Amino acid sequence: MLLRIDHVGIACRSLEAAIDRYVSVFGFTVASEETNAEQGVREAMLVTDSGDSYVQLLEPLGDETPVGRFIARRGEGLHHVGYSVTDVTAALAEVGGAGVRLIDSRPRHGSMGASIAFLHPGDLGGVLTELVQPLRAAPESA
Amino acid sequence: MLLRIDHVGIACRSLEAAIDRYVSVFGFTVASEETNAEQGVREAMLVTDSGDSYVQLLEPLGDETPVGRFIARRGEGLHHVGYSVTDVTAALAEVGGAGVRLIDSRPRHGSMGASIAFLHPGDLGGVLTELVQPLRAAPESA
Repeated sequence: MLLRIDHVGIACRSLEAAIDRYVSVFGFTVASEETNAEQGVREAMLVTDSGDSYVQLLEPLGDETPVGRFIARRGEGLHHVGYSVTDVTAALAEVGGAGVRLIDSRPRHGSMGASIAFLHPGDLGGVLTELVQPLRAAPESA
Repeated sequence: MLLRIDHVGIACRSLEAAIDRYVSVFGFTVASEETNAEQGVREAMLVTDSGDSYVQLLEPLGDETPVGRFIARRGEGLHHVGYSVTDVTAALAEVGGAGVRLIDSRPRHGSMGASIAFLHPGDLGGVLTELVQPLRAAPESA
């Protein structure tokens, strides 16, 4: 069901500082920068050399956002992991059928045009988990 | 420098329970189970469908191990991220040259025969980061 690790999400206080750090240390390329008001973040996707996995840097838009509360509670660091899937709607049905609580019962908009959905960490060993259907995996005929 | 996300490491109290959960929910295949006394863990590597990224489940061998202390402090959850590299010694030199503190100044043994080294989270936005030179990437002549 899960093709590969699509990305790790990293909560940071300053997006600019985090981008600078990760680009200067690892030579990452910035694939996109976006604001996602629904999720309460400014974010950047840095692509690895293979082109098929990403580091997602997440700066909260305010203290009372999920990422803002995460940083207040635990500090900067690993926030979630996202796995790529061929069909996020089908994967959600399968995972829900296995008894995992769904944060998103239907897909919503993620980075770079992807369709995404979050799964509850309480049913996955404390790991906030995201399913990602990348835009590039959409049918040609769409 | 970083080819892709090789794995995420997930700290868990019971390796068996975590394997059962991840296999039954996501259909993962268990690629290996090992004890790494040096790192103080029993662990399993679950391979994603693409075959090139893994979920590493880590059960501490005792409370006074790094993963044991992590769980006591933060509970079960995401512990670190590992990126694959072609040459871990060269990557360590490059990352150290960029001013990142190295937990391992020279490579040591990781899962499935890989050569690995950890980088200090304090210099990488709170993220414990691992460089992984997979065994499969070793020169044929070795």
